[in-house]
Amino acid sequence: MDDNNSNPDAGSTGKAVPFPATEFFDGLPEPDLLAFATAAEKKHYAKGDYIFAQENNATHFYIVISGWVRLYRTTPDGQEATAGVLTTGAVIGENAVFENAYQYSAQAIEAAEVSAIPVSLFRERMAQSPNLMLRVTQELARKLESAQLQIEHSTLKSALQRVGCLLLRLSANITGAGGAFNFPYDKKIAAQQLGMQRETFSRGLSGLRPVGVTVKGSEIGVDNFQRLTDYVCKGCSAYPDKCPGPRVDASGRKMPLYKKLYFFVGGVLCDTYGGLLQIF
Amino acid sequence: MDDNNSNPDAGSTGKAVPFPATEFFDGLPEPDLLAFATAAEKKHYAKGDYIFAQENNATHFYIVISGWVRLYRTTPDGQEATAGVLTTGAVIGENAVFENAYQYSAQAIEAAEVSAIPVSLFRERMAQSPNLMLRVTQELARKLESAQLQIEHSTLKSALQRVGCLLLRLSANITGAGGAFNFPYDKKIAAQQLGMQRETFSRGLSGLRPVGVTVKGSEIGVDNFQRLTDYVCKGCSAYPDKCPGPRVDASGRKMPLYKKLYFFVGGVLCDTYGGLLQIF
Repeated sequence: MDDNNSNPDAGSTGKAVPFPATEFFDGLPEPDLLAFATAAEKKHYAKGDYIFAQENNATHFYIVISGWVRLYRTTPDGQEATAGVLTTGAVIGENAVFENAYQYSAQAIEAAEVSAIPVSLFRERMAQSPNLMLRVTQELARKLESAQLQIEHSTLKSALQRVGCLLLRLSANITGAGGAFNFPYDKKIAAQQLGMQRETFSRGLSGLRPVGVTVKGSEIGVDNFQRLTDYVCKGCSAYPDKCPGPRVDASGRKMPLYKKLYFFVGGVLCDTYGGLLQIF
Repeated sequence: MDDNNSNPDAGSTGKAVPFPATEFFDGLPEPDLLAFATAAEKKHYAKGDYIFAQENNATHFYIVISGWVRLYRTTPDGQEATAGVLTTGAVIGENAVFENAYQYSAQAIEAAEVSAIPVSLFRERMAQSPNLMLRVTQELARKLESAQLQIEHSTLKSALQRVGCLLLRLSANITGAGGAFNFPYDKKIAAQQLGMQRETFSRGLSGLRPVGVTVKGSEIGVDNFQRLTDYVCKGCSAYPDKCPGPRVDASGRKMPLYKKLYFFVGGVLCDTYGGLLQIF
């Protein structure tokens, strides 16, 4: 049993359903996709329910269909360290494919639907499609890049920029020049996610007013996303295809975050977005 | 060409040599090991030399034989974010196995020897030994755990505890009750590694005097490792087998960091080191 919920309705299973579009399954051979879609169980969790707990026996991995899920670790003295806040399309518990126990607790912080896929099936298909392991590898690489970026931001960026970065990620699907959205989960968790106090987070939100951010309760307004991007993404080392929340234009294309700049690495002139220009 | 060094002696190649013991290759079939050992090139780098630069074409991955290597990213405005400081047995550039470009710059911060293994060979052997990809996956999982732990520490631990954690990692091979060692690389880089200012790092070192740490130039003395461990590791969520620097006893066994404690996750009583005790 991998569900540990006090809510008796939590984790109730429905009939097999496909999972949402995710890079994890994108382009896999039909037979693999069909096998996963058939075995996948849709589960519903109420706000506060646990999908799995740290150190539980790892039997499934999960694709988030909707809602918000927090991954966190509990320290021996009972403190919680938030490792990620994830939504539609995110893969959680993927370490179950090669380890026996979950590394984190996964809690629905708003009502959530997830698709549960048995790791036993994944391992079985992997024997025939070795490149399935590549999916897990790429998923871990994505999460590593995201964690390293968080470390970079906590070292090099101001609290205001880190709050602004989260706002850009939460609004990445808005295609207009500006727009408004409801902050989708508890701001206390957002503060934990950014490794700051709740008060610092609130001050960060109001401090972004000069770059066009307004806050009315849970509604966040952004006058001009490009203006906020210019302020927030200045000096971030993420490329558009690695940024956890790049703006997307009306055609769904990921847009550059910030103007291209040039820098030296070991006598080599490089540009921001990857080109090696000249060796001196 | 993946070496970009101003030093003309940098990256000079020697004859094929085996690589140091590392979990990455541990227990692989003989034919794979032999193929890697035959293709591996030993390379020497002087302090300051680059092994590879961020966004270079990724042709090799590397095992550190000796010395110290810093991984870092450069932001568009020229700031550096240190992603890791690694020594003997560490794998670097492993993303080359599934991506075209290095994600980081790798710089020798002290004279270093590394073993360079062509990714083309790795991919070729992988076609016959699919579980080779599992090694890359586990390596990424280790690095992800380490990054998440760094995020946890920056949120939940004091600067003193973070400095003490680094001292414990750097002295993990000392088996006595106490001991002394030379800080093996520039303390400025150690400060970057922990995401703090150089001055905060120095204050951290002197602030650890009450728990038996003494500093004379580059020599660090620790009266009693258990006493430092009790202070530093209190409340850390890492298990001994996941800690990046657990103390090792005279027989080479990894020792528990801190006394076992109990905590609740979703109505389940768990202990610090993984047991699920009872469901309420």
